[in-house]
Amino acid sequence: MATENTKRTDVNQLGEFGLINHLTKNVKLQNPSSKKGIGDDAAVIENGQLQTVVSTDMLVEGIHFDLMYSPLKHLGYKSVVVNVSDIYAMNAIPKQVTVSLALSNRFSVEALEEFYAGVQAACDKYKVDLVGGDTTSSPKGLYISITAIGQAPADKIVYRNTAKVGDIICVTGDLGAAYLGLQLLEREKQLYLSNPGVKADLEGQNYLVGRQLKPEARKDIIELFTKNNLVPTSMIDISDGLASELFHLCTQSKVGAFIEEKGVPIHDDTQLMAIKFKLDPITCALSGGEDYELLFTIAPDDIDKVKFLPDLYIIGDIVAEKDGVKLHTTGGNIHPIKAQGWQHFGS
Amino acid sequence: MATENTKRTDVNQLGEFGLINHLTKNVKLQNPSSKKGIGDDAAVIENGQLQTVVSTDMLVEGIHFDLMYSPLKHLGYKSVVVNVSDIYAMNAIPKQVTVSLALSNRFSVEALEEFYAGVQAACDKYKVDLVGGDTTSSPKGLYISITAIGQAPADKIVYRNTAKVGDIICVTGDLGAAYLGLQLLEREKQLYLSNPGVKADLEGQNYLVGRQLKPEARKDIIELFTKNNLVPTSMIDISDGLASELFHLCTQSKVGAFIEEKGVPIHDDTQLMAIKFKLDPITCALSGGEDYELLFTIAPDDIDKVKFLPDLYIIGDIVAEKDGVKLHTTGGNIHPIKAQGWQHFGS
Repeated sequence: MATENTKRTDVNQLGEFGLINHLTKNVKLQNPSSKKGIGDDAAVIENGQLQTVVSTDMLVEGIHFDLMYSPLKHLGYKSVVVNVSDIYAMNAIPKQVTVSLALSNRFSVEALEEFYAGVQAACDKYKVDLVGGDTTSSPKGLYISITAIGQAPADKIVYRNTAKVGDIICVTGDLGAAYLGLQLLEREKQLYLSNPGVKADLEGQNYLVGRQLKPEARKDIIELFTKNNLVPTSMIDISDGLASELFHLCTQSKVGAFIEEKGVPIHDDTQLMAIKFKLDPITCALSGGEDYELLFTIAPDDIDKVKFLPDLYIIGDIVAEKDGVKLHTTGGNIHPIKAQGWQHFGS
Repeated sequence: MATENTKRTDVNQLGEFGLINHLTKNVKLQNPSSKKGIGDDAAVIENGQLQTVVSTDMLVEGIHFDLMYSPLKHLGYKSVVVNVSDIYAMNAIPKQVTVSLALSNRFSVEALEEFYAGVQAACDKYKVDLVGGDTTSSPKGLYISITAIGQAPADKIVYRNTAKVGDIICVTGDLGAAYLGLQLLEREKQLYLSNPGVKADLEGQNYLVGRQLKPEARKDIIELFTKNNLVPTSMIDISDGLASELFHLCTQSKVGAFIEEKGVPIHDDTQLMAIKFKLDPITCALSGGEDYELLFTIAPDDIDKVKFLPDLYIIGDIVAEKDGVKLHTTGGNIHPIKAQGWQHFGS
């Protein structure tokens, strides 16, 4: 029978990113076509005229989603969106996806039809093709693995590690809403569990709940970049919260960042709901995840190209690495920003 | 809270392939670069000079592997092999893989290091690069999702649906060994569980156990095809047993097949162990899976190109669809072959 290891280090000791780094530190690329491996939103593969961009994600029931409040159709939609968002974050155009499922026998064919209807709706919206996958049994729960494949000319692809001191930091949309949508759904779930007769009260919360259950990827922004002949100097999508993504971008680019709190876009509904939950709205924006907006930097000379773009906000500047990653609050204080993913939120 | 569907069809009613077909029957490809979608060993994407080939698989603890007798290093190795085998089955060269894991907290960092050592060993052997992936929590068990990416010129890629009446059917290696390796490991597991003091008796069974725990993909055969200027007329890798793969190939090509039992390669160890388990060796070859050999067809004019190739066997001919898929036994009888995956073996 298989032998046991004698030393035992708990996985949580390293954290998700530490774990990936640790496990893949010896990986050396050997094929000339492997242009970029682990460490960005997606891998990049050389293919002659165009480069192929590949991103993959695993979504696990009970970890990433709760079927008590995630309709399967929304879940199928979101699974695709999360992955095409990674392709857009490379300034590439997603073209294909593969969808693999491991599922327990509690799922009926009709339930899977719902899931695939959501996958198809996202494929239609983002003009990507479902080209493959795998469907298999799971002893318990639903596991979704999606791979998205896109393409772009080599000189258009934008990485995380190419921000320069003096660059301007931008974000799209607004931040923190998906996190508060999740808090609302969790609150309703707890009420329902303690009193199944109670009807969910999500009246007037369409925006926040929608941002959680049916996020969109910023295809429109990538199209505006092309239209305005703009190539950001670095880019990443915001899946784990602004703070965490800012840290990835700064660490990999070997730079620091100075963020203005008043520049960070937060929706009115997010502001109000944060206060109801006794949370600081800026904390929700920094540490709440799943907004799937874009965080990117541009060269100072390109500022005129973004100034009048819709739904796009300048939030700060790239500074020297030694100056760290800091927030200038509306109250006039300067705080170092900590890289917290949403999993650790509130702890 | 999410609404329930009223109709409920059990997933098992459709079977794995029926389920995939059912769920993806409305999928229409919209991007010109999506050359081939669902329904072959891999998807094919147009990229100018070369085409990109993408294959993905999900491996689930308790369904596809048992950690009681699968060392994690072997499992990492096999996970990559299973996927590069799909790329070779398209007559393409695998170049990159992504590896995603969902794992419960019973796995230590050291255990994952073992797994990744196996992944790396396979990457080195098959000259592919690990370029991405995702690592996340699982409430229970280990889930592995691998995507392999390869490339080939358009005129070299071989599909499943292009076999022609009169073509010659070939297989590589030998069949049924991985299945008997699994039976041996399962037997030892049961003995161990009922009497933990007993030492596993796998003496002299290296071949069969090795075929199960550490299979190889037929890189060598694909290289020989190129060397001999041979492009098969159709090809598929044997992951679910010869019968099942033959059915895929015939159904998609709209042809039948006539197989000679005496042509089907079976290793001496497989013959002997089948008899010990009171199984018919040809049944193990037809319905046992996980050999990862290649099943392919060639034009009759190409017979001289394969006749003297090592480890390659002619097992029959492609016939008209109306003549069905049949086996000419060594006893002189002609039986229709049933498409059984290994999961249904013996039932």
